[in-house]
Amino acid sequence: MKAPRIAVLGAGSWGTTVGAIASRSSPTIVWARDPSAAREIAECRTNERYLPGASLPRGLRATSDLAEAVERADVLVAGVPSQGLRSVLRNVAPILRPWVPVVSLVKGLERGTHKTMTQVVAEELPGHPAGALSGPNIAKEVASGMAAAATLAMPDQGLAAQLADLFRTDKFRIYSSNDVVGVEMAGACKNVYAIAVGMADGAQAGANTKAMVMTRSGREMARLGEALGGRRETFAGLAGMGDLIVTCTSPHSRNRHVGEGLGQGRALADVLAGMSQVAEGVTTTPVVVELAEQVGICVPIAREVLGVVEQGRTVKDAYRGLLRSAPGHETEGDGW
Amino acid sequence: MKAPRIAVLGAGSWGTTVGAIASRSSPTIVWARDPSAAREIAECRTNERYLPGASLPRGLRATSDLAEAVERADVLVAGVPSQGLRSVLRNVAPILRPWVPVVSLVKGLERGTHKTMTQVVAEELPGHPAGALSGPNIAKEVASGMAAAATLAMPDQGLAAQLADLFRTDKFRIYSSNDVVGVEMAGACKNVYAIAVGMADGAQAGANTKAMVMTRSGREMARLGEALGGRRETFAGLAGMGDLIVTCTSPHSRNRHVGEGLGQGRALADVLAGMSQVAEGVTTTPVVVELAEQVGICVPIAREVLGVVEQGRTVKDAYRGLLRSAPGHETEGDGW
Repeated sequence: MKAPRIAVLGAGSWGTTVGAIASRSSPTIVWARDPSAAREIAECRTNERYLPGASLPRGLRATSDLAEAVERADVLVAGVPSQGLRSVLRNVAPILRPWVPVVSLVKGLERGTHKTMTQVVAEELPGHPAGALSGPNIAKEVASGMAAAATLAMPDQGLAAQLADLFRTDKFRIYSSNDVVGVEMAGACKNVYAIAVGMADGAQAGANTKAMVMTRSGREMARLGEALGGRRETFAGLAGMGDLIVTCTSPHSRNRHVGEGLGQGRALADVLAGMSQVAEGVTTTPVVVELAEQVGICVPIAREVLGVVEQGRTVKDAYRGLLRSAPGHETEGDGW
Repeated sequence: MKAPRIAVLGAGSWGTTVGAIASRSSPTIVWARDPSAAREIAECRTNERYLPGASLPRGLRATSDLAEAVERADVLVAGVPSQGLRSVLRNVAPILRPWVPVVSLVKGLERGTHKTMTQVVAEELPGHPAGALSGPNIAKEVASGMAAAATLAMPDQGLAAQLADLFRTDKFRIYSSNDVVGVEMAGACKNVYAIAVGMADGAQAGANTKAMVMTRSGREMARLGEALGGRRETFAGLAGMGDLIVTCTSPHSRNRHVGEGLGQGRALADVLAGMSQVAEGVTTTPVVVELAEQVGICVPIAREVLGVVEQGRTVKDAYRGLLRSAPGHETEGDGW
């Protein structure tokens, strides 16, 4: 088969990194909203704002003209922020050729609709197969060639495996899956649970407590994800537990940082004021709790995060609340 | 029901901690092989060698007389090292009352026979229900009252829940399970995979790589454990991924420390020479690889650990070997 042309929407750190990897084996173009960012990538082969220090491959093209990026594409990769995806896709719809698969890099749920990114794709680009690439991937490390792994899920496993090959290198291991909902819910939920783990850090809980919160968070998101149509095992995988681990061990996680500040007794507004980028978990938390209510799943950990983030509860109260409930069957119980 | 009398075999850090917790609600006695250790616990209410600084509850009794500890026991807790359990149980057999359940705290497999600890119990104390208590539990943190969780598995779920209640406190959450093989294999395997993660640390791999190794190790042990009769989900739980997380984040893990030394290019003998206590993973690795062969499961990560630990391969070679294999389906594939 002819090498497919790849268009990446969004020139953030991860979109640029994925584009750079793909460009080594396939014709690849990145769309940047900002013309100067597109010019910098095309002419200087750098993206100093999002990937400082990285030098991008010669083969990677860039443009701020959406039509130029999209009209000849055989694969569309979506790397724009979750709340902006729908409007970009509306502009893409009349230009994109039929059948072109769409791979989302975005970890989040749409506010208001509670939709996953592939559900947004299904609405705005009906007929296009939609999936997600997700995993423990700090962009800077992947860009610098350090080993990493991720999962690429598409409704059709054969297509998932073919697309995985497009982005795969010796050092970037892409596993394939047909559990699209699972991979997307895992990516969205882990930001919520990273706040819970950060709270434990901030309150100076020990290593046991942190491991307990991480493990039981993995179970809580698996139960919710299963009720929404995903598979439990996906949540124990790269997009779920793997990403939660990297979020909870790396000092760079914005969501963990928010939790840590709250755990130290600081106010949310105060913690957020000191940050230059969005912590997706703060907006995802109420959405996760509402989704859980709709499908009748208890999510006590997410609920306590919500209590602290939106309802003025203290982290101490939250942990006290959690510790009050008696633990049941480890894998069949209803509680946290 | 009358409060059961509990006998804990072994006065190491974890046996002493579990005994101290149990003694708050049930008559509890610890058996220490060394008479002076028993005297120290009984008279000074301390165990300076294994739990320096901790003050033990008044209700905790101690003895070096095995008959005194065991003959009136209603529950037996086994906290002696894995290679010594069988000989202690031989001495217990003629003294222990019938039907008394046995809970193992030991994470390891018997050399030569490849048996789990409850399989050893079944052979030496036939007729006694045997299970395991396992999880991310650094003894020192649990002893000092920091929150933690663990899983107690017995073949009968009702008995598991009753026993969990005996050791449970507000801060030590014990979940119950009937997957005894799963909980035991998880506890034994995680020492092997902690070496693999340590190797990544020693070779200065990044956070992505570490999360990849941990996540795929979780899957590898789940596949092996399932083939041996356990449930996959148990390995995503406290005794599996939870314990791997605490082992891989705490600076105190002996197994991770061994892997780290090897990853820095040091020889195994050299790394072990600098350690005062056993790293169970070193002896468990060949057993895990042999068990996997017997049941026809591929364990590439464990096999590479074995190559470095026993066959003189370098950590670089091991990682190169792992990265050569192409990733398949995330949750259904055969490889690592």
